[in-house]
Amino acid sequence: MNFSSRLVVTLTLGCICVSVCLSQSNHVETRSWEDVAAKILEIGLREGEAYAMLEELTTKAGHRLSGSAGAAAAVELTRQMMSARDFDNIHLEPIMVPHWIRGPVEEATIINSQSMGSVPLSICALGRSIATPTDGIVAEVVEVKSFEELRAMDDEAEGKIVFFNRAFDPTELNTFAAYGGAVDQRSRGAIEAAKVGGVAALVRSMTLAVDDVPHTGAMRYEEGVKKIPAAAVSAMGADLLSDLIRQGESVTVRMKLTCQTLPDVPSANVVGEITGSEKPHEIIVVGGHLDSWDKGAGAHDDGAGCVQAIEVLNLIKKAGLTPKRTIRAVMFMNEENGTRGAKAYPIAPQREGEMHIAAVESDRGGFAPRGFTVQADSIVLEKVQRWKHIFEKIDAGRIIAGYGGVDISPLVKDGVPGFGLLPENHRYFDYHHSDHDTIDKVHPRELEMGAIVEAILCYLISEEGL
Amino acid sequence: MNFSSRLVVTLTLGCICVSVCLSQSNHVETRSWEDVAAKILEIGLREGEAYAMLEELTTKAGHRLSGSAGAAAAVELTRQMMSARDFDNIHLEPIMVPHWIRGPVEEATIINSQSMGSVPLSICALGRSIATPTDGIVAEVVEVKSFEELRAMDDEAEGKIVFFNRAFDPTELNTFAAYGGAVDQRSRGAIEAAKVGGVAALVRSMTLAVDDVPHTGAMRYEEGVKKIPAAAVSAMGADLLSDLIRQGESVTVRMKLTCQTLPDVPSANVVGEITGSEKPHEIIVVGGHLDSWDKGAGAHDDGAGCVQAIEVLNLIKKAGLTPKRTIRAVMFMNEENGTRGAKAYPIAPQREGEMHIAAVESDRGGFAPRGFTVQADSIVLEKVQRWKHIFEKIDAGRIIAGYGGVDISPLVKDGVPGFGLLPENHRYFDYHHSDHDTIDKVHPRELEMGAIVEAILCYLISEEGL
Repeated sequence: MNFSSRLVVTLTLGCICVSVCLSQSNHVETRSWEDVAAKILEIGLREGEAYAMLEELTTKAGHRLSGSAGAAAAVELTRQMMSARDFDNIHLEPIMVPHWIRGPVEEATIINSQSMGSVPLSICALGRSIATPTDGIVAEVVEVKSFEELRAMDDEAEGKIVFFNRAFDPTELNTFAAYGGAVDQRSRGAIEAAKVGGVAALVRSMTLAVDDVPHTGAMRYEEGVKKIPAAAVSAMGADLLSDLIRQGESVTVRMKLTCQTLPDVPSANVVGEITGSEKPHEIIVVGGHLDSWDKGAGAHDDGAGCVQAIEVLNLIKKAGLTPKRTIRAVMFMNEENGTRGAKAYPIAPQREGEMHIAAVESDRGGFAPRGFTVQADSIVLEKVQRWKHIFEKIDAGRIIAGYGGVDISPLVKDGVPGFGLLPENHRYFDYHHSDHDTIDKVHPRELEMGAIVEAILCYLISEEGL
Repeated sequence: MNFSSRLVVTLTLGCICVSVCLSQSNHVETRSWEDVAAKILEIGLREGEAYAMLEELTTKAGHRLSGSAGAAAAVELTRQMMSARDFDNIHLEPIMVPHWIRGPVEEATIINSQSMGSVPLSICALGRSIATPTDGIVAEVVEVKSFEELRAMDDEAEGKIVFFNRAFDPTELNTFAAYGGAVDQRSRGAIEAAKVGGVAALVRSMTLAVDDVPHTGAMRYEEGVKKIPAAAVSAMGADLLSDLIRQGESVTVRMKLTCQTLPDVPSANVVGEITGSEKPHEIIVVGGHLDSWDKGAGAHDDGAGCVQAIEVLNLIKKAGLTPKRTIRAVMFMNEENGTRGAKAYPIAPQREGEMHIAAVESDRGGFAPRGFTVQADSIVLEKVQRWKHIFEKIDAGRIIAGYGGVDISPLVKDGVPGFGLLPENHRYFDYHHSDHDTIDKVHPRELEMGAIVEAILCYLISEEGL
């Protein structure tokens, strides 16, 4: 035996010993968490209620834009869902929310195509946009792919409808990264267009799907910059516009929007919990946002996250578990166009004497979960990754550093560890903010699995701390 | 420093050293594989052709039961797809296949419900079933959940339609395991029913979905046991039958099937490859089955696996890679009701002088891949698991011991390592073997991702061996 082989033997034996010791010391502790996880899984798969709740929410309340009747119905419906399941401390936390409405007319037509004559485009106003003048806007369309390209145009965009047509990068495996690479056009397009004298912004829908359905979403204005109307055009409409322009046509569009911003109205976050048996003032929040856009029914965005949060508590109760710390479901109002609920929650009077130790959000759709992101320091990440084997057993072992979610952001900024459910994401932006976001796109078991993953995570945090 | 802490330090240092050495020695080798994987991913996501091929297959050939015109069209279509992509050694390997046809009529009606009168049931013949007599069968229905229950019945089932109503276990996270726990009713139900004097078998559809669409699939007869007709009833139909029986009703059903087995007809496996640059006689097979049931369009089962196999070669060619070993796409014919193609492939004359080193199959649907199973010894499993980080990067890092697939089974029995793509599986049995299995249930990116995972796996095996 030469030196190096003896060294290998020694080290190998050493490694085996250490790993055996480690797994022995973990044995007692983790065995019972695995049993708890298996129990939650079994109850969820056998008698889960997430899908039935989502059906009720999306049919009885429908879409739920802040300030709408649907949003008000959703507040009452989710309060009732919590009440029917006997949660503790159920209450509303009142807030004022913006009240933007789409109005009865939104239309756009190519009026002068040499090859095709008059061609209607599928558009929808972007949230917060002002209306066009009553007779609409008629202007030539200028296409750009970026703000840089627009700024370099000098006065070429003056008096025109600026058409932002940078598509999602399809080579991004993560569709949220593709969204992140395109969404500046929707949020800031009207500002940048106005700065160079544009009269309206027309933005390619934020989706990888190529169909004729426009996708809405929030846009904003900037103080000191003229407000101009902004709309999304369907991917097919965008391709048509781009084709005509590439063929050298001067394309003129008539565009009409009747949206308006009304005075703020009262609304509320909806809150219910299982009060902790040992440390009731230490809180784990699990939530989604109750408002949606006024297209489709907000099934994936974010009805899914709301009913999952309620189902988390439901599963824990059904499993007969009595968490040491408080696990609280929060339906945040107004994520889409104001985040008033998210901002109000941490500073509401009810927070007095409470300490939040974790905030979990599901706002990436109700698809099969792969794991979750952790928005916290490396010590928390490491601690949570020690539970990886529990989540791997249910095919959700991807525990990575990453953004938690919009609604829990104010908590995270205050130092509370944030967690964001990570579902399968290829289909999400096909539906997001559009008429496609309906209950038939959600699969009952996939939705329930998200609630199961969140329930296990919340319970582990409740018992073990972070 | 006492003894035990010194021991810990020694062991810890030892472990660190070993792992550093390992990762250094792997560094050069794996770096380039990661680049290759990234390139295949990029090409697939940017210009993947799997979905377009599946559209063509499911619309031009439609469903493709062995012996049907659709199956013949599929042979020619996939040959053309390979040809258009300039594969090497494209050829058909002729086989004879069974030719079972459903016939124009399949119907069942509850004729005597006290509460509901006459109620039609959604049924379909099971594959290989004989027909009923021309006037149908009229008989009382007896419900059982298991063969044991049936055998314990004595003569109670004599002259009756035996209704097998054991549903999928919803608490199985893996829907394939739930299928495995119920499918004996479909495959052996007619045998067991006939043994106790039953006149027909009616089997609850193999699905977790509760709707009114029946799911077909293979059944069989046993020599020496009387052949009786067998059909699947939709989940809703099964629930209705069960409810009426539980309420104490004597339920009589009239059932009519016109299916028949015609003489065997010629068909073929379709084969094309990228011939290996260094070891052309060492083969990596990647395949799916080209036949489908005569319901829906066989989009997930298994059009997906077929177009993915063609796309594997397409991606490797587009990436400019020249594999050392031969990578071969095989469209296996007749998996559903005979596996004649699978059995013929290993003993075809073309196999002379060839050595198969791996066989990869995709036959679990075209959903987002999670990883793959390895059906081989522990040395192969360990070797492949060393590539885990490459697959984890594309969210498909689940590499586990498990069944490869039906079509590669004869190869695996001969000692060839088998690999089975592991997609997300919650939705699969909602569509499987039914009118629901159509192209609209397949997502272009999810389908393409399966091909990407298979392409990376095949190329790694080709370059590194097993």
